Amino acid sequence: MTPDEARRRFAAAQVAHLATADATGAPHIVPISFAIEGDALYTAVDAKPKRGTRLRRFANVAANPQVSVLVDEYDEDWTRLWWARADGRASVLVGGEALEHALTLLRARYTQYAEAGPIGPVMRISVDRWSGWSWSEP
Amino acid sequence: MTPDEARRRFAAAQVAHLATADATGAPHIVPISFAIEGDALYTAVDAKPKRGTRLRRFANVAANPQVSVLVDEYDEDWTRLWWARADGRASVLVGGEALEHALTLLRARYTQYAEAGPIGPVMRISVDRWSGWSWSEP
Repeated sequence: MTPDEARRRFAAAQVAHLATADATGAPHIVPISFAIEGDALYTAVDAKPKRGTRLRRFANVAANPQVSVLVDEYDEDWTRLWWARADGRASVLVGGEALEHALTLLRARYTQYAEAGPIGPVMRISVDRWSGWSWSEP
Repeated sequence: MTPDEARRRFAAAQVAHLATADATGAPHIVPISFAIEGDALYTAVDAKPKRGTRLRRFANVAANPQVSVLVDEYDEDWTRLWWARADGRASVLVGGEALEHALTLLRARYTQYAEAGPIGPVMRISVDRWSGWSWSEP
């Protein structure tokens, strides 16, 4: 799969999976909502909080900015399987115009955000590499 | 979500996502088919090979055995969102009865394996912690 095609599949997906790792290399994985703009991928904390505001994904990228994000679809027919991946480095937006811009992108993408949130902080991932795989590819 | 409930949701799922990290802490994420037995989770390489036999997930766990595996379902109605996670340590089965047993479990779980594969090696994950989250949980 070409990088352009991988990026296109991200743009069409509603959910992705984010992998981070702490300073010892222990991986952590969560499903995320997200928005992309160019080679930047943004993801926020939903208004429904998970056990406190200091989420492990944010603690991890503070210690180790390397992240990997995956979009894929499962199908009982395995010849239809594919995935697309974005590898890059994360930073955290805690305020200012950059945060507001990211929240606007996220609100525009998900009608579910109309009633509540998203709330900051936002993770900004600078994507160094778009890649992908499909079962049926030559 | 209780550890038992998280484990039950793994047992009912067809696809999971596996996060590994290399020696530098760079995370890697892939969708996987899997089987569980007690606190062991097994995943193999599908018969359709991805770019050679030396897959990055296996290279990663050779350097750093810490892994995280996630099962989840996306729904447009976010109040129905949930995920379940298994954190543990991975080893690689390359032969012998342990490998055959794992391949038998995988073949029994996926009709898609009837025609081809799975082939070794198999990753065996010893799960130290089952956990989970759901939007609607108190």
